[in-house]
Amino acid sequence: MLTNLTKPLLILDKSRCIAHIKQMLAKVDKNTSKLRPHFKTHNHAVVGSWFAEAGVKQITVSNPFMAEYFVAHKWKDITIAFPFNISWLPMVGKLAVTASINIMVDNEDTLQQLSLKAMANLGVFIKVDTGYHRTGVDYRDVKTMDSMVAQLSQNKHLLFKGFLTHAGHTYTAGSQGKIKTIYNQAFSALCDLKERYADTYSDISISYGDTPSCSILPVLDKFDEYRPGNFVFYDVMQKYIGACTDKDIALVLACPVVSVNRQRNEIVVHGGAIHLSKDFIVKNNTPLYGEMVLFTEDSWYKPEGEACVRSLSQEHGIIKADSVLCQKIKPGDVVGVLPVHSCLTAFQMGYDYKIINGTTP
Amino acid sequence: MLTNLTKPLLILDKSRCIAHIKQMLAKVDKNTSKLRPHFKTHNHAVVGSWFAEAGVKQITVSNPFMAEYFVAHKWKDITIAFPFNISWLPMVGKLAVTASINIMVDNEDTLQQLSLKAMANLGVFIKVDTGYHRTGVDYRDVKTMDSMVAQLSQNKHLLFKGFLTHAGHTYTAGSQGKIKTIYNQAFSALCDLKERYADTYSDISISYGDTPSCSILPVLDKFDEYRPGNFVFYDVMQKYIGACTDKDIALVLACPVVSVNRQRNEIVVHGGAIHLSKDFIVKNNTPLYGEMVLFTEDSWYKPEGEACVRSLSQEHGIIKADSVLCQKIKPGDVVGVLPVHSCLTAFQMGYDYKIINGTTP
Repeated sequence: MLTNLTKPLLILDKSRCIAHIKQMLAKVDKNTSKLRPHFKTHNHAVVGSWFAEAGVKQITVSNPFMAEYFVAHKWKDITIAFPFNISWLPMVGKLAVTASINIMVDNEDTLQQLSLKAMANLGVFIKVDTGYHRTGVDYRDVKTMDSMVAQLSQNKHLLFKGFLTHAGHTYTAGSQGKIKTIYNQAFSALCDLKERYADTYSDISISYGDTPSCSILPVLDKFDEYRPGNFVFYDVMQKYIGACTDKDIALVLACPVVSVNRQRNEIVVHGGAIHLSKDFIVKNNTPLYGEMVLFTEDSWYKPEGEACVRSLSQEHGIIKADSVLCQKIKPGDVVGVLPVHSCLTAFQMGYDYKIINGTTP
Repeated sequence: MLTNLTKPLLILDKSRCIAHIKQMLAKVDKNTSKLRPHFKTHNHAVVGSWFAEAGVKQITVSNPFMAEYFVAHKWKDITIAFPFNISWLPMVGKLAVTASINIMVDNEDTLQQLSLKAMANLGVFIKVDTGYHRTGVDYRDVKTMDSMVAQLSQNKHLLFKGFLTHAGHTYTAGSQGKIKTIYNQAFSALCDLKERYADTYSDISISYGDTPSCSILPVLDKFDEYRPGNFVFYDVMQKYIGACTDKDIALVLACPVVSVNRQRNEIVVHGGAIHLSKDFIVKNNTPLYGEMVLFTEDSWYKPEGEACVRSLSQEHGIIKADSVLCQKIKPGDVVGVLPVHSCLTAFQMGYDYKIINGTTP
């Protein structure tokens, strides 16, 4: 598929992406729930269009710059799921003229500023910490919740939309059972909050998102909306979590081989930290930054034997490979690397994909 | 210095950069040696111009795209210090029309292709492994060296320039004494090689580079050229290696504070893996992704008490801070983060700096 490659090239398998989108949508019970996929993973109008063609109408992004991009690509219902920065107010004000914009707040300081300054209609979610401990108001801290809901009602432009959580601790839960426990706990916490304000706010929602839970659960019917993002591409990390298989991974970095050391069984590729990102998982007590694949005419496959990226410099990747495999590879070849964290790899490659039709997983 | 910041902003202190350039140049004994700084760290014409003003005429880059950029900015003597990819031949051929281009080769496969195909005049360095074990021919493997030197002579466009090594193992050496030992060993190895071919090639060079050695050594007078790169900015990693102090670090990521958790003493900033990179060092048995600073009107300083980035998501940074410090920070503030690895941070921020005059260290 690839010759004369002068630098790493990101390749995206369209068939796999579309299969993932359809599969996730099929799990969502339309009577109870909606899919509001996180578009930070791909941040790309073409990938976005595959969601639109599958019937998705509402999306999640990380910041107003991303929202601006997707509004320009005709998306009309966007949640910015990142603790709101009050300096974003002029930007979201402009976006709210043509689209329905929801923001997310997790503290009273920001909410106070917002209630003083907001002059455009904005939906507001309160971010709830259900155990990940990154951002959000602790789900048990109803005093703060009460105060925030009251503050919200002070400005007629701010429409209270409900409670949102990201259960990022599913990534390190260690088993499918534990992931399900986290999901059930988060549902119970957010249900209680929804119930608490039901008399005054009868139509608020509860929103949940992360790829491990949404991939592992057979049906998505509890929360009002689900916001997974990574599932459109998947990656090596999700494979080890149990959220996907090798054949689901839709993104691969094609890397020129520049050196092979047959004493150490190492393949050196042009494909380093600035391309893959330095995110890693630990396998056999050693960091793993990606897994090597070989290309066919129209796809890629995992070769027999071990072949993992074990070290990354700025532009170099060092693949430790089985000796038989190492003998077959020579400088000038092109190999693929499945990324550990596809969101970061896609961002770092400037969202510049070669899209192939590929193969349905 | 900063208000209404809608996204992370990279700030570069020009005075510190210029001081580092002058200091490094002052160490290089002009009778024996040259500085050929690695421009991958900044990859920026403006920063490059500070080197040119200080008298630097020769530079190092990582790939022909970077070489192309600097040739367009009037640089005329460039070494591409990355194992040569034969697909780069048309690009370097064009560059060699207006500039003196050196390439680096570490294996016979590539050299064979080169000797068959090169039709532009190129200087060629053989990359030597003096103990880092990333790329390069083992310094003891004179059989391969002999064969490569012979191969080189087969094509009249290829001019044998000498031996080049990168002692990347200085980064983990653990002490200044051990860094000096690595330096001396590398010098001894490359001297032997230079001597071996002296009868046939009387004017070949030996080239060495890495910021830890070049920063720690008081005088640079052994190798024909030195190729440090990171020293122009420095970073937290170099500080812990002992190559610089806090006041030398010339690059800081200004990050909007979006949330503060006073129970956990955590400051949440917009500034994550896609901005800083996920490179880290381990301090107190915990990963450290950056150190927090506070801004003054025209610079920044380290506050009293602990304040380190201890966790990074795609766009979030979590700073664990001393409780007194944490009390003073609120959402809407802007804090700075000194990066662990400035080369990666600069790349990921698209080399888009706000340059301030700053303060001489």
